[in-house]
Amino acid sequence: MKDILWQTIQAVKATSPLVHNITNYVVMNNTANALLAAGASPVMAHAHSEIEAMTGIASALVINIGTLDEYWVESMRRAVLEAEKLQKPWVLDPVGAGATPYRDRVLEELLKHKPTVVRGNASEILALASKGTGTKGVDSINESTEALDAAIVLSKNTGAVICVSGAEDLLVQQAQGLSITNGHPLMAKITGMGCTATALIGACCAVLPAQPLLATAAAMALMGIAGEMAAEKSAGPGSLQLHFLDMLHTLSENDFMQRLKLKQLDAAF
Amino acid sequence: MKDILWQTIQAVKATSPLVHNITNYVVMNNTANALLAAGASPVMAHAHSEIEAMTGIASALVINIGTLDEYWVESMRRAVLEAEKLQKPWVLDPVGAGATPYRDRVLEELLKHKPTVVRGNASEILALASKGTGTKGVDSINESTEALDAAIVLSKNTGAVICVSGAEDLLVQQAQGLSITNGHPLMAKITGMGCTATALIGACCAVLPAQPLLATAAAMALMGIAGEMAAEKSAGPGSLQLHFLDMLHTLSENDFMQRLKLKQLDAAF
Amino acid sequence: MKDILWQTIQAVKATSPLVHNITNYVVMNNTANALLAAGASPVMAHAHSEIEAMTGIASALVINIGTLDEYWVESMRRAVLEAEKLQKPWVLDPVGAGATPYRDRVLEELLKHKPTVVRGNASEILALASKGTGTKGVDSINESTEALDAAIVLSKNTGAVICVSGAEDLLVQQAQGLSITNGHPLMAKITGMGCTATALIGACCAVLPAQPLLATAAAMALMGIAGEMAAEKSAGPGSLQLHFLDMLHTLSENDFMQRLKLKQLDAAF
Repeated sequence: MKDILWQTIQAVKATSPLVHNITNYVVMNNTANALLAAGASPVMAHAHSEIEAMTGIASALVINIGTLDEYWVESMRRAVLEAEKLQKPWVLDPVGAGATPYRDRVLEELLKHKPTVVRGNASEILALASKGTGTKGVDSINESTEALDAAIVLSKNTGAVICVSGAEDLLVQQAQGLSITNGHPLMAKITGMGCTATALIGACCAVLPAQPLLATAAAMALMGIAGEMAAEKSAGPGSLQLHFLDMLHTLSENDFMQRLKLKQLDAAF
Repeated sequence: MKDILWQTIQAVKATSPLVHNITNYVVMNNTANALLAAGASPVMAHAHSEIEAMTGIASALVINIGTLDEYWVESMRRAVLEAEKLQKPWVLDPVGAGATPYRDRVLEELLKHKPTVVRGNASEILALASKGTGTKGVDSINESTEALDAAIVLSKNTGAVICVSGAEDLLVQQAQGLSITNGHPLMAKITGMGCTATALIGACCAVLPAQPLLATAAAMALMGIAGEMAAEKSAGPGSLQLHFLDMLHTLSENDFMQRLKLKQLDAAF
Repeated sequence: MKDILWQTIQAVKATSPLVHNITNYVVMNNTANALLAAGASPVMAHAHSEIEAMTGIASALVINIGTLDEYWVESMRRAVLEAEKLQKPWVLDPVGAGATPYRDRVLEELLKHKPTVVRGNASEILALASKGTGTKGVDSINESTEALDAAIVLSKNTGAVICVSGAEDLLVQQAQGLSITNGHPLMAKITGMGCTATALIGACCAVLPAQPLLATAAAMALMGIAGEMAAEKSAGPGSLQLHFLDMLHTLSENDFMQRLKLKQLDAAF
């Protein structure tokens, strides 16, 4: 399985898939830079006058509701319908699920259109599965393991791969589960690392559309390993951001294979 | 007083208050990263469909009109009303005051809703007090000392703490005044350093709501000391930005106490 | 000619012209930082309620359609009319030309208002001249030399200086042509480097409005030389971004003169 993950990361570099992002204002720059550093070709577009056309030429769609409003939600709705129609992979980042009733209504509607993957922190995934203990804005107040049951329910109900990111990343697709424990705590001190993960999942789904669980694992492994290697040389969140982009661009197969902490979740699951 | 400032900075780290920002597109990423580096939890949200809900769960509100438009001004209006109603601290950054009549009209209205703190550069504070000699876009063409009288008038008229930032930061609350002379000229070569200061004031007000003058001083001292220490190791504005975030995260009590250049403005004031 | 380019770069530092940007969400932060590092004074503003007022106080206008929508297109339209009326230089960045019919319609209309300079990658310039072989989102799939004929046609039809940026930058004004071959391939792995080039062209046009071909050459030379010097000390796109801003701020006359690879395009042209 490790080989498939590495090959997926290499396929992004080799084919440079166009990833259409409808994402939040805070992270657009980070997201575009992370996709470029990983070898993909990002485009950000939200105008109602072109939304279907842009989704139509992209290989994957990424929807992130971080700074949603009424106009942008309509853009997301249309893009998601187009992706569903054209059977293109699309990934949902439910930023701040549970923080306001509006976010929950929007997410409920988007979830009906069969996302390929949903990636959130534990609080967000708990909120999505209506088990939330309340979220505090956009940062998680729960550990990812608390959200495992919620992820299983959500995956069964939506058909999507559910990825709960945190110190341990939990990836669930129906009866299958994976765990990745790479990464570094300092990553939580940069805004948009979760959003970057979601965008990289989009890039990996673009090159491995038939196996979204493995595509998600490839992206989360890349995030975690690039992040921990970057953190090891960083004096704080500012330098982490720089080294993280450098590592996305330069990560070697050797480092990837030696550092990857991936395991299958056992049958009890 | 130095101890209270340091304790305030530590309280932000310890309690990680949620700070609701309605700010401009240019600096959203910087602002979120600075708040995270300082230990706060940022959220950016502006949709009319959720604005009161988001202000309602936050511990402080930050309003920055840098890239205002009609929709966003309505978001600001509603958020400010909610903060006033719930008696939550809110901080105003009057970016580009005096540059266009529209900005001045919007600011006049926002000022009626009793901001806890207003932070701007000298040109902006002069414009707010209707004494402006004209602004040039969003960069100051006046020294902060020229704006002291304007700050005193504004503080009396609005009840807010007024902070004029510059080579010398002047903080005024009614008959009280403080001066902080930390910082470095290279900080003016990064966009959004003023906006970051305003957001950090919001975080400090969240943990010390009853003493907004000291909360403002804590934030401005943190900015200035982190900025000057970062500038000392920087080859230009790119590296300053990185080191500044690192310093916000790692600043020690020893460095803070030894470097702080704080004085009370004398009675003649 | 080399001296005029260097003097133009110095004039930006000396006079700090106000550059009004209506640009995309992804790059606003980079653009503002690059303009500041080069010595200019950036302002980003798009509200219909102030758009003419802001263009009115600026020395140059930069229009970039990267994340256009219906509201922003109206802002661009009004700003461009005002710049035309006041005879201020304005620069167009046709991001994603050819990617969707909407972008092409908007660009067709904007081009009627006599931009001073148009800067795009080869795919965008080919699309603008209706010779496009199709674009892939916002990244070029053509070499700049393939777009030379298109640039000549466009310059004749619009009266604008046309700049095709790439490994070789081609600058065309009617019967005159220049080539600059500074730069580094890693620059393509950072988002918004093209947008930054366009903004710097705006700053240079502000100080040399009567000679837009030379102003464009000054900006592209600064980009290329700062970029290649930055790339030489960078381990990847994250560190390139940092060093690039540092170099914009600190580039010396000696390095500029020794590295500049500028030539006139020959008569056969």
